[in-house]
Amino acid sequence: MTISFPPPSETKSELEGEGLFSPRFGADGLVTTVVTDVADGDLLMVAHMNAEALALTVETGIAHYYSRSRQKIWKKGESSGNLQTVHEMRTDCDQDAVWLKVSVAGHDATCHTGRRSCFYRTVTHRNGRAELAIVDNTRHFNPAQVYGSAGTKS
Amino acid sequence: MTISFPPPSETKSELEGEGLFSPRFGADGLVTTVVTDVADGDLLMVAHMNAEALALTVETGIAHYYSRSRQKIWKKGESSGNLQTVHEMRTDCDQDAVWLKVSVAGHDATCHTGRRSCFYRTVTHRNGRAELAIVDNTRHFNPAQVYGSAGTKS
Repeated sequence: MTISFPPPSETKSELEGEGLFSPRFGADGLVTTVVTDVADGDLLMVAHMNAEALALTVETGIAHYYSRSRQKIWKKGESSGNLQTVHEMRTDCDQDAVWLKVSVAGHDATCHTGRRSCFYRTVTHRNGRAELAIVDNTRHFNPAQVYGSAGTKS
Repeated sequence: MTISFPPPSETKSELEGEGLFSPRFGADGLVTTVVTDVADGDLLMVAHMNAEALALTVETGIAHYYSRSRQKIWKKGESSGNLQTVHEMRTDCDQDAVWLKVSVAGHDATCHTGRRSCFYRTVTHRNGRAELAIVDNTRHFNPAQVYGSAGTKS
């Protein structure tokens, strides 16, 4: 990893302009990352990056995240084959979020459940409650076969 | 606000299934929210919701967030007129992120800079650095006129 990121400007107009990318990592050292499919724009997942994951992604063009549960760098798809090639990276007005437009290799699936997207359920207001309904149940791979019984997702 | 959310299940299969929405708020009490335009799927913004903002959004169908900088509920568009009507809400496999598909009233602009989306800049790898370039500079409103000199965004 050779890229380093300068500290973010305190000046709003500088933060909103051009120049060097100066991500505003949170207190946990992470920025939120939104991942969409470059072909049709579908939202695939939301993940998090620390400075190392962000630098690896910029340098290699392959999406790397920071796994909060496993507390380590996570090269998405390393065990499932569903690597994400980054076609475009964007950031938002205050540089605390990243957007990746990717194409997915392997099974063309991003969710560890085997579905294309992690966002396979709607939330609706019914009877004074918020209820979940599955709207995509197509499994592109069998998680037990891909991850083994340990079920470690990648 | 009448909706309350049950604590998330410790069982992975329950967390990934149907039933009541049981959002996994972070240590800061927030879930990440991704906002796209229902018409063309474009990514408009990333924001955060606490339980109150989430309940208000589910109940009213108008997007409410929690402003971390102002530390209060933020009815998006209250001062700019750019209210967001929620056409669909989704959550992801581990229920720690929310996706809103919205239509935007007023100027049809979401970013406080007057642009349609907060993600108006690309990040590219050049000369061993990560550089920002503005790819959408169309202003749908004049922030100084809309927010006044205080520049409080909404």
